[in-house]
Amino acid sequence: MSDKIRGVLSPVVTPFDADLQPDTTRWLSHCRWLLSQECGLAIFGTNSEANSLSVAERRMLLETAADAGLDTDRMMPGTGACALPEAVELTRAAVEAGAAGVLMLPPFYYKGVSDDGLFAHFSEVIERVGDARLRLYLYHIPPVAQVPVSLDLIERLLDAYPGTIAGIKDSSGDWSNTKAMLDRFENFDVFPGSEEFLLEGLRHGAAGCISATANVNPGAIHALFETWTAGDADERQAELTRFRKAVAQYPMIPALKAIIGLSTDDPDWGRTRPPLVPLDETQRANLAETLKEFDFTMPGRTAA
Amino acid sequence: MSDKIRGVLSPVVTPFDADLQPDTTRWLSHCRWLLSQECGLAIFGTNSEANSLSVAERRMLLETAADAGLDTDRMMPGTGACALPEAVELTRAAVEAGAAGVLMLPPFYYKGVSDDGLFAHFSEVIERVGDARLRLYLYHIPPVAQVPVSLDLIERLLDAYPGTIAGIKDSSGDWSNTKAMLDRFENFDVFPGSEEFLLEGLRHGAAGCISATANVNPGAIHALFETWTAGDADERQAELTRFRKAVAQYPMIPALKAIIGLSTDDPDWGRTRPPLVPLDETQRANLAETLKEFDFTMPGRTAA
Repeated sequence: MSDKIRGVLSPVVTPFDADLQPDTTRWLSHCRWLLSQECGLAIFGTNSEANSLSVAERRMLLETAADAGLDTDRMMPGTGACALPEAVELTRAAVEAGAAGVLMLPPFYYKGVSDDGLFAHFSEVIERVGDARLRLYLYHIPPVAQVPVSLDLIERLLDAYPGTIAGIKDSSGDWSNTKAMLDRFENFDVFPGSEEFLLEGLRHGAAGCISATANVNPGAIHALFETWTAGDADERQAELTRFRKAVAQYPMIPALKAIIGLSTDDPDWGRTRPPLVPLDETQRANLAETLKEFDFTMPGRTAA
Repeated sequence: MSDKIRGVLSPVVTPFDADLQPDTTRWLSHCRWLLSQECGLAIFGTNSEANSLSVAERRMLLETAADAGLDTDRMMPGTGACALPEAVELTRAAVEAGAAGVLMLPPFYYKGVSDDGLFAHFSEVIERVGDARLRLYLYHIPPVAQVPVSLDLIERLLDAYPGTIAGIKDSSGDWSNTKAMLDRFENFDVFPGSEEFLLEGLRHGAAGCISATANVNPGAIHALFETWTAGDADERQAELTRFRKAVAQYPMIPALKAIIGLSTDDPDWGRTRPPLVPLDETQRANLAETLKEFDFTMPGRTAA
């Protein structure tokens, strides 16, 4: 892990079978397709319904990926948990599987907690895992977790664990926050949480992006990452943003699953675990129309 | 479980040892003292730092209580979890241990979820546990979970599972919401989440209360529950409220632990798991002064 992971990563959506169990066949197939599109695997993210998976299920999927020979150094599993022992267990498992890094939510049950308390949590995880291979990416997603990762907390963690605190996913949706991180920290890789900020991010030193819609549109996002200094970059950014916004008219996670289902003629892909609900028939039909307007395809993505 | 649990319950605070592991000795001692004060055990509540405990730790503590011969039909363990399989596992374990009921948070990671999604979650838990002994108390605590349990959701659940949906803990802190629940539903036991609403609650048919400060002040709260029709009830309610507000000047969970530590000359009781932090020295000294002003004691509460 001497070279830190960069580029476009997808918080891989998790398919479920009729009994609402993780469907490993469909999941591996999606992981493989994403890798074929040069897209890294941020498995167990918000869009993966990771917090709707048990710790045992997340470990089972991680093992499934490793056993299937997926490139674990293109993986950044989410290993955050409200309970310290579970965050330690998941993080250790990811490191031992050879993951490029882990993406870690703060503990998100209690609200209004202090930076001292959050520092203690991350610090305990790092010390208990006790493995020099650990690359920890913080996960700032205040709209969902409601517990922010402040700039001051990042600074304290970087000072205490400079080799381990590797970067952040910023899903605040607030460019001024992303820019503040890019301006303030060194040796700290910032991934905006949406491709909407990819070009602006790269111009200010971002490491790539980790975006929900990379589940379905990874090729075009990766192309911009690769050639962002080209003359037509702004135009391509605008097109990526236009597609993103079109998808975001729908509830994001069910919409991504519906798009995969529509693209592979496999409507069962649309299943979600409660408390999320799949798109209804009208939403699905409207989404199909939206995709047509974009001449949208998932090149090479076949069923299963 | 023909008679539903009533009265005053305490979300039992969880002591930790120097390595931040649950301290079963101190925990059992606290559980036993609460039972001696006629206080029921809402173990694994918000004030128990339950979401900072792993599923394995919660199961271990539940077994410890059962093995120690604690009266499980005075228990209402918290069994909510973001992940359906974990909510099922914890709920099943509680039912099998003979708990009077379970107190269940909605899945709390995703925000703005629909009542359809929450209904599906609770419904799946009930059907997968599949045990007629299950008495499920919903847990409405919007300031922390940020995912509310609406009146309409309660109605749908009561219609679908009338024998199983047993009641609610309302920690909204909003009396009008508590009163709306009391007015609207039958065969549905409402426990306000603070003794501040105990007397008003009982006057409108509440089943008791489940309150943080019952960890330290259970006797006086239970006394009001028992004799709330007496002439001095309003006066005693005012005194309970005055004490509650004095404690609530401090961060509640660390303050409760500090009070137990001060009352048993055992400062190690003050430990919390991250992201919570113990009271600092100044806070502890001020809290000790506050307790003196109230001539506060925990009768019969000895060390360990």
